Amino acid sequence: MGNQTSWLDRLLLRAIHRAAGPVPVRMSSSGDGAGDSVLSTIPVLRVADRRTLLSLALNPEMGFGDGYTAGRIEVEGDLLRLLEIVSKRPRPVATRYSRLLSGWLAWIQANTLRGSRSNIHHHYDLSGDFYQLWLDPQMVYTCAYFPEPTATLEAAQSAKLDHVSRKLWLQPGETVVEAGCGWGSLALHMARNYGVRVKAFNISHEQIAFARERARREGLSGRVEFIEDDYRNVRGQFDVFASVGMLEHVGREHYRQLGDIIHRAIGDRGRGLLHFIGRNYHRPLNTWLRKRIFPGAYVPTLREVMDVVEPHDMSVLDVENLRFHYARTLEHWLTAFERSFDTVVQRHGSDFARMWRLYLAGSIAAFRAGALQLFQLVFAGRDCQSIPWTRAYLYEAPGEDNQGEATWIRAIS
Amino acid sequence: MGNQTSWLDRLLLRAIHRAAGPVPVRMSSSGDGAGDSVLSTIPVLRVADRRTLLSLALNPEMGFGDGYTAGRIEVEGDLLRLLEIVSKRPRPVATRYSRLLSGWLAWIQANTLRGSRSNIHHHYDLSGDFYQLWLDPQMVYTCAYFPEPTATLEAAQSAKLDHVSRKLWLQPGETVVEAGCGWGSLALHMARNYGVRVKAFNISHEQIAFARERARREGLSGRVEFIEDDYRNVRGQFDVFASVGMLEHVGREHYRQLGDIIHRAIGDRGRGLLHFIGRNYHRPLNTWLRKRIFPGAYVPTLREVMDVVEPHDMSVLDVENLRFHYARTLEHWLTAFERSFDTVVQRHGSDFARMWRLYLAGSIAAFRAGALQLFQLVFAGRDCQSIPWTRAYLYEAPGEDNQGEATWIRAIS
Repeated sequence: MGNQTSWLDRLLLRAIHRAAGPVPVRMSSSGDGAGDSVLSTIPVLRVADRRTLLSLALNPEMGFGDGYTAGRIEVEGDLLRLLEIVSKRPRPVATRYSRLLSGWLAWIQANTLRGSRSNIHHHYDLSGDFYQLWLDPQMVYTCAYFPEPTATLEAAQSAKLDHVSRKLWLQPGETVVEAGCGWGSLALHMARNYGVRVKAFNISHEQIAFARERARREGLSGRVEFIEDDYRNVRGQFDVFASVGMLEHVGREHYRQLGDIIHRAIGDRGRGLLHFIGRNYHRPLNTWLRKRIFPGAYVPTLREVMDVVEPHDMSVLDVENLRFHYARTLEHWLTAFERSFDTVVQRHGSDFARMWRLYLAGSIAAFRAGALQLFQLVFAGRDCQSIPWTRAYLYEAPGEDNQGEATWIRAIS
Repeated sequence: MGNQTSWLDRLLLRAIHRAAGPVPVRMSSSGDGAGDSVLSTIPVLRVADRRTLLSLALNPEMGFGDGYTAGRIEVEGDLLRLLEIVSKRPRPVATRYSRLLSGWLAWIQANTLRGSRSNIHHHYDLSGDFYQLWLDPQMVYTCAYFPEPTATLEAAQSAKLDHVSRKLWLQPGETVVEAGCGWGSLALHMARNYGVRVKAFNISHEQIAFARERARREGLSGRVEFIEDDYRNVRGQFDVFASVGMLEHVGREHYRQLGDIIHRAIGDRGRGLLHFIGRNYHRPLNTWLRKRIFPGAYVPTLREVMDVVEPHDMSVLDVENLRFHYARTLEHWLTAFERSFDTVVQRHGSDFARMWRLYLAGSIAAFRAGALQLFQLVFAGRDCQSIPWTRAYLYEAPGEDNQGEATWIRAIS
């Protein structure tokens, strides 16, 4: 501690360290010596003034997020490294203020039909031009699957679409319902490569418009129908249910309802896949993320997701954890984002650009540190007749694919 | 219904059908016409007398199990087919009597240190000669892994030992603790083929003696230590935890304790595997099985197993459902058992032989029908550094194995 640090600063620093761990904090306005002494290997938080220090102490998540966004907090050293140190902290202690804010957010961001529309609009109805600056050409905004860590993002996103399709063991002529289809890549991939018909739901107007235009250009409009509607309004019978990156927006209190909707769609003979960001144990999502980036979002544990499948006697067939693949995916996104940083600042302003940088970097840190996981969960109804005998076919080269068909399980009726 | 069926019989039949579904029941002592009319495709329960009918109605599970064991119930037609029809029934309605019995069993069979010893002794301290009649030569008494459905049982059990070892990504020089090691096959396989040192725990005296003798004969005593003790007494530090077919004997109320023991053994950097019979949703195990075959046993849902991993921030990396592989394994066991049926009758009596036939056939039916699942769950501590990049290496031929090593994840500290 420098000599000029007041008792108030010390109090605030203590609160910050309780939440964030041994991260050195220094205050610009107090002269050079104020704040923590600096260990050279750890990045330093440079805080503009006492007001920012106070907001950090009161609610570290919001204080840091908004402070960084506004440029009142700068990180001297590696931002990612700092975020990883913080992410590695076990179960953060919530201050009374942050608990209040968290409860208030849960209430105003509830995923009712109308609430979901507003929550999704906030993030996904940003113009496609913005996402095109840093996503892959297919515009896949979920965790990629890198067969090798060195694969390009483009190859890894194609591999993910195929990994998901293979896990679902799609057969020509089958019908698929997709809940939360983004810009339509998975639905188009399935129809194009597996001869299935897909109904794909999304409540983001911008994304649906983009997806429909792609289907038209590719001549797939007859086999892929993009529907601008809530997953709760899915009607009809399908062989397969798929949802990639939507469960995080469903909200924990709606999992049983989601299970009912899936069961109504695929019955006892269908199969499905949920691809979602998860946790090792229950804790609420970072309040800053919920307030500024993903309103209404909740990241579930596997235990919580059992609410979807258990009530209908559906079997979990396969769970794969791709946490490090999401870190890698986000590294690609952040690299591309940084290359376009000036463009983003010009178009959307500095606050917006810094907010997005923090969100992307913070997500990398969380996946690396294990604060977030990525689960792909395959399930089947109690009378499902098409379950592969082993998972070996997932790892065969495309040409070898037919061998697997001999070893389907034809369930005993 | 035949004319000679009394109102009492009709009442009892109604109770039986509520529990077991549309299975025709006929009573031998009431002449030919008594009981249900018979649909030719469905096997018929031939019940010796009204006393047996009454026991069936009061507690279908116990009544059927004990009646079949004593020869007071015969199945005309395919026993397996009958058991599958019953297994396909959703959530059976428990009678008041069966609920009472279930609660009483839970109490007297509690898995305290002493209770577990008595429960395990009941099943696993039967002489090795008996199990040798129908298990594979390596004496593996858990679900096998059939790379192809047509593989022999011997090949499939070897493949299982290797599938488990590969999932654990064993490296030469590492240490493994195994909880519940049966006759020692997995511990010996790991030490022999992966250059690891293993401490393997089991409270079955007969099995430990057998396993030690095998280790001595193979010259592996220096690398595999078989310890006749409870998993709760595991001490020391290990890289890897493995347990195949023990969780069913741990008891639901001990999962958190098991998690504590695993965490004490492998810390935050280790990894582990649980291989266990599971359920799609919570319900108690068949009372007859718990009373006659597996005292103290409980078959958990994935949700319940989260009690093991969640409290220590361990990550679920992989879940595989091998339910149809257990049906196949049991088919091999039952076939061999039937070939030795007369020998079993000579050595152990007719009741014992019929009881074991029913247990094996009932288990096939339960796995085929989906009343039971088989899960292999791989997990890792929060700071685990050795996590394979993808699961592709699991499906490579042994020669290709080294390629995978380049793609380990070295976790970010």
